[in-house]
Amino acid sequence: MEPRISLITLGVDDLDTERAFYVALGWPSPSQPDDEVCFFQANGLVFALWTKLGGHGAPGIELAYNVRSAAEVAPVLAAAEAAGGTVVRPAQLAEWGGTSGAFADPEGYVWEVAHNPAWTIGAHGGVTM
Amino acid sequence: MEPRISLITLGVDDLDTERAFYVALGWPSPSQPDDEVCFFQANGLVFALWTKLGGHGAPGIELAYNVRSAAEVAPVLAAAEAAGGTVVRPAQLAEWGGTSGAFADPEGYVWEVAHNPAWTIGAHGGVTM
Repeated sequence: MEPRISLITLGVDDLDTERAFYVALGWPSPSQPDDEVCFFQANGLVFALWTKLGGHGAPGIELAYNVRSAAEVAPVLAAAEAAGGTVVRPAQLAEWGGTSGAFADPEGYVWEVAHNPAWTIGAHGGVTM
Repeated sequence: MEPRISLITLGVDDLDTERAFYVALGWPSPSQPDDEVCFFQANGLVFALWTKLGGHGAPGIELAYNVRSAAEVAPVLAAAEAAGGTVVRPAQLAEWGGTSGAFADPEGYVWEVAHNPAWTIGAHGGVTM
C-alpha cells in the first residue's frame, strides 16, 4: 500500500443542503451522477457526499484507497490482513463498474480499496476524476 | 475556501498498535512528536493518529483545512458561517504553536481550520510536513 488517501466520503441526510453549503464556501460544482451522491475534486483526492453511506463500519465518514488496476485490489486486502487488519468485504465487481473491497484497521476504521476505471491516479498518488 | 483537505485524523486508543499496522502496510515511518499523536505524509495531505481526538464533534475522524497564514483562519470561519455552517471554535492561538479554529457543516461534520507555521502548502493546495 502506498501512502495515500483517494476519497473521503461523508454520509449525509440532505444532499442538496450539504452540497449547497460546500459550493457556497467556494468549492467548484461537483459532479453528481444521481440524486444520492456528489463528488468534489479536491487536492489530489475526491471529497464525496453520499446519502447511502453505511454498512462499512465507519460512522459517518469513510476513507478510500484507489489502485491503478482491478488486479491490485485483492493484494492490498491481503496485505492489510497480514499487517493485523480484517477484510470486511472481499474484492468484487461493483455495480458502478469498478472493483472494490474493504478492510478494517485494528481499531475498526474501514478503508475501501477500489479500482475505478474512470478515475486517473497520478505519479504522486493523487486521484483525478 | 479552496477545495482541499489538509489533514485527516483518526482518534485511536492504542497508538502503538495503529501506528505499527500502517507501517506494516507500507506507509513510511511517521513523525511522532510525543506519545499521543503521529503524522504520516500522504499524497499532498497528512494522515494522523491521535489518542486525544474529541470535543470537536466528529465521531472518530476529523477533517482539517490548513491555510497559508494565521490571518486566514478567521475569514474561513466567517465564510463557513455565511454559507450556513456553525463556528464551533473561534480562531485562537494553539498550544502547538499555530492558529486554529473550527466550523461544523449543516449536518455537524467538523472541519478544523488551521495555520501551522511548520507545514508548507503548495500551489495545488497539498500540504507537506
